[in-house]
Amino acid sequence: MFLRNVWYVAAQAHELTQDKMLARKLLGEDLVLYRDASGAPVAFPDRCVHRLAPLSAGRLEGDRLRCMYHGLLFEPSGRCVDVPGQERIGPNLKLKPFPVVERHRLAWIWMGDPALADPALIPDAHWLEDPAWRALPGYVHYERANYVTIMDNLLDFSHLGYVHENTLGGGRVSAEVIPKLELFDWGLRVSRFYSAVPLPAYLKNLAKFEGPIDRWQIYEWRLAGNLLTMDFGSAPAGKGALEGNRPPDALVFQTVQALTPETEGSTHYFWHVANGFNLDDASITAELHRQTDIAFAEDKFIIQAQQAVIDAHPDEKMVGIAADAALNQGRAILKRMLSAEAGAAA
Amino acid sequence: MFLRNVWYVAAQAHELTQDKMLARKLLGEDLVLYRDASGAPVAFPDRCVHRLAPLSAGRLEGDRLRCMYHGLLFEPSGRCVDVPGQERIGPNLKLKPFPVVERHRLAWIWMGDPALADPALIPDAHWLEDPAWRALPGYVHYERANYVTIMDNLLDFSHLGYVHENTLGGGRVSAEVIPKLELFDWGLRVSRFYSAVPLPAYLKNLAKFEGPIDRWQIYEWRLAGNLLTMDFGSAPAGKGALEGNRPPDALVFQTVQALTPETEGSTHYFWHVANGFNLDDASITAELHRQTDIAFAEDKFIIQAQQAVIDAHPDEKMVGIAADAALNQGRAILKRMLSAEAGAAA
Amino acid sequence: MFLRNVWYVAAQAHELTQDKMLARKLLGEDLVLYRDASGAPVAFPDRCVHRLAPLSAGRLEGDRLRCMYHGLLFEPSGRCVDVPGQERIGPNLKLKPFPVVERHRLAWIWMGDPALADPALIPDAHWLEDPAWRALPGYVHYERANYVTIMDNLLDFSHLGYVHENTLGGGRVSAEVIPKLELFDWGLRVSRFYSAVPLPAYLKNLAKFEGPIDRWQIYEWRLAGNLLTMDFGSAPAGKGALEGNRPPDALVFQTVQALTPETEGSTHYFWHVANGFNLDDASITAELHRQTDIAFAEDKFIIQAQQAVIDAHPDEKMVGIAADAALNQGRAILKRMLSAEAGAAA
Repeated sequence: MFLRNVWYVAAQAHELTQDKMLARKLLGEDLVLYRDASGAPVAFPDRCVHRLAPLSAGRLEGDRLRCMYHGLLFEPSGRCVDVPGQERIGPNLKLKPFPVVERHRLAWIWMGDPALADPALIPDAHWLEDPAWRALPGYVHYERANYVTIMDNLLDFSHLGYVHENTLGGGRVSAEVIPKLELFDWGLRVSRFYSAVPLPAYLKNLAKFEGPIDRWQIYEWRLAGNLLTMDFGSAPAGKGALEGNRPPDALVFQTVQALTPETEGSTHYFWHVANGFNLDDASITAELHRQTDIAFAEDKFIIQAQQAVIDAHPDEKMVGIAADAALNQGRAILKRMLSAEAGAAA
Repeated sequence: MFLRNVWYVAAQAHELTQDKMLARKLLGEDLVLYRDASGAPVAFPDRCVHRLAPLSAGRLEGDRLRCMYHGLLFEPSGRCVDVPGQERIGPNLKLKPFPVVERHRLAWIWMGDPALADPALIPDAHWLEDPAWRALPGYVHYERANYVTIMDNLLDFSHLGYVHENTLGGGRVSAEVIPKLELFDWGLRVSRFYSAVPLPAYLKNLAKFEGPIDRWQIYEWRLAGNLLTMDFGSAPAGKGALEGNRPPDALVFQTVQALTPETEGSTHYFWHVANGFNLDDASITAELHRQTDIAFAEDKFIIQAQQAVIDAHPDEKMVGIAADAALNQGRAILKRMLSAEAGAAA
Repeated sequence: MFLRNVWYVAAQAHELTQDKMLARKLLGEDLVLYRDASGAPVAFPDRCVHRLAPLSAGRLEGDRLRCMYHGLLFEPSGRCVDVPGQERIGPNLKLKPFPVVERHRLAWIWMGDPALADPALIPDAHWLEDPAWRALPGYVHYERANYVTIMDNLLDFSHLGYVHENTLGGGRVSAEVIPKLELFDWGLRVSRFYSAVPLPAYLKNLAKFEGPIDRWQIYEWRLAGNLLTMDFGSAPAGKGALEGNRPPDALVFQTVQALTPETEGSTHYFWHVANGFNLDDASITAELHRQTDIAFAEDKFIIQAQQAVIDAHPDEKMVGIAADAALNQGRAILKRMLSAEAGAAA
């Protein structure tokens, strides 16, 4: 079950070009994506209306798409402008494009009722374009995990000391800090503050200070589009960083992480971790990307293993622990939104 | 859904020997095929009646087939002549052979009611034995395509300029020529004539003339057994070739192409392209075979890609174009024949 | 359908250690097995009660098992002794261990009602620890065979001359000897005696005598746990070996073979062939193991091929032969036991 009347990340900006189609499955539907002559993203179902041949096996002629089975040619609007061997082209020979909007270096797609596709609903991810931040695009393909199972992981920090014992780390303290949880219509905000803790391994090469440090993790999770944006960082302990007085040498980060269901059992995970310091040193962003990539592979391993067990035991109850508070709230809000959408459709 | 009371090509002559069984699935049924002592083809279900071990894991002893699980031995008639450890052999310990007839270097099998298996119904493919023609046997295994999806392709020429843009070619003209369509009880005949067109790339090395040329493609499609036989060729333009006056230097070809369902979702495609000129030059037939093989791989690519989309969207309507005329007729005749067979069985 | 209230072989002794968990599926259930501090085997379902992450992706800390998703720690009793970030641990945060008993170098597991798990019901396999015998553990993983299809093979000797023509051999005589069949509540005993037959190839290097020989095969098959134990051997012909007077130079063997269903369609096959002569020569046991391993791969090949045909033809009747007597009885007893267990559960 997916929310449909929401914007999802379909692709990262660098994935879309005018030369080559990107074939990608989203919400169970095969699509082709490319850029038209103006550079704007275009998304079609990946099948010709004639005999259902995949358009991704076709070719771009300028910004028109030629199906390479029988040669039908379509404009970015979906209109068919050439049928070899035929003069008149009926109005039903038409592709139905999906609304797609590029913003903040992400291509957002609307796969529900097109009449409701209001670009004003696209959530903020401005850090990806803001000159005060630097980020590299990251991607994990979850071949075997439902998006909610991954959402559980993103809303839970007690796993940090175990799944990421040798990378992000944090030890038991990640589980022991009591988060502040705020609920909204759109999702939830979780704030976690760590006072005077050791400097984690992955920050050792970046910090101009040593431990103890104060750390903060303030993240907002939007159920519509499954977007996590997190403000996190570290500063020398006891200088008031947790009260908002972040010193100039604070290491400040901002993530943009989006889960887009591929199918009920597989998920696209688009992520960025931006740094807001030492902007002239590209190696920092590169190293941050590299380390995050390793850590997210650790998540993928355990989440896919967990998903296999869940799938094999569909009726098995889970026994809750205190650390489940945020993910339980996240699931409750999602359930409410799914019901609302189902009700609106009925 | 398959027609059952018809002859299908089970194998090409060279595939059957007296030394070794051929294991092949046809119409969803696993079979073993070999030649008996007289050289005649034999076909059995690929399972021993005793404990269902596959006979293809057994061995030939002369022209008798030994199951190598418990040693039962069967004659080409299907009679069991040896059960180790047992004197008397009951009449139900018997394999049920399928009617198989070899003709024109093809082994034809009847998998419906054996009482109806009249060899007079085997369609003509005499070119494969006729000294006036030369051909090499070709084969494509469609692992993921229903035979009707491939039939669509064989009955359609508008794809030539796109799927085979760099091989068989023909450009838009293939789509633009209006075919003459004749309907019969057994299927349909399509005749296509091209006046004064360029010499296609794949004929450049064979022709003693340059373009413009006249080309003809006259093909008959039999729904029973899915046999396409095509008379096609080229001659210098304006010499009357399209009216039947084929000059001595005309390049004349004859194909024999047969689709035999393997399962509902996979198909055997047995093909030959014979040349009726320069019979002393074996390299012509070899080159013709090589080029056709490449072109048929292009078909396989697009057809299997199309089949995957069709399977994922079983309820999706196709929107017709003018070039669909022949395949629509072919599907209509097939539907009629399937209904007739279902009615006769009821 | 499996019997559940019986002991099954879960693992061979050498597979279980204190350092590393063994992940294994038995009767459709994923388990982890290891040894506790005392060396006793422990078996848990391979899923954490918290969020169902596989425990086999966790780690042992002493003889306690840490789930490496959120860090929950469990004792061999199943009790949870640590939940990071939480003081009080509720009683439902508990793993449910399976009864496991190690005996005769086999770990026996009870996956039915734990209240019925009486170790006195574990069948005898003392030869694996008896100093009068030597054996090496063997294992075959049947990825694609139901245990009953393999049971058929173990209860049938007519296949020896065909499946094992070039290894165990025996030729037609294996099929022609009439076995003595005795039925019991627990299963059946089959006794086969061969007077004055040739020495089979695989014994040529072991015997201090040449043919003709007398051979015996006396095997007991227990349906509960699918355990075959076979007393077999060879001695010079005519010295009374078949009447129980086994001479000192007789080659005496004892097998212990156990089938444990992995799923309905796959099976674990744990086997040992012990020799009771030349105990000082380890190469005899090694060679016996090597040859048996090859022969059992022959069985696996034909059985899995047969299973594929059975699965494709679920309604196909099998036609019986005389050699099926023992396996028919085995199936009848199994059916009775399955009904009894289903009745007891109702």
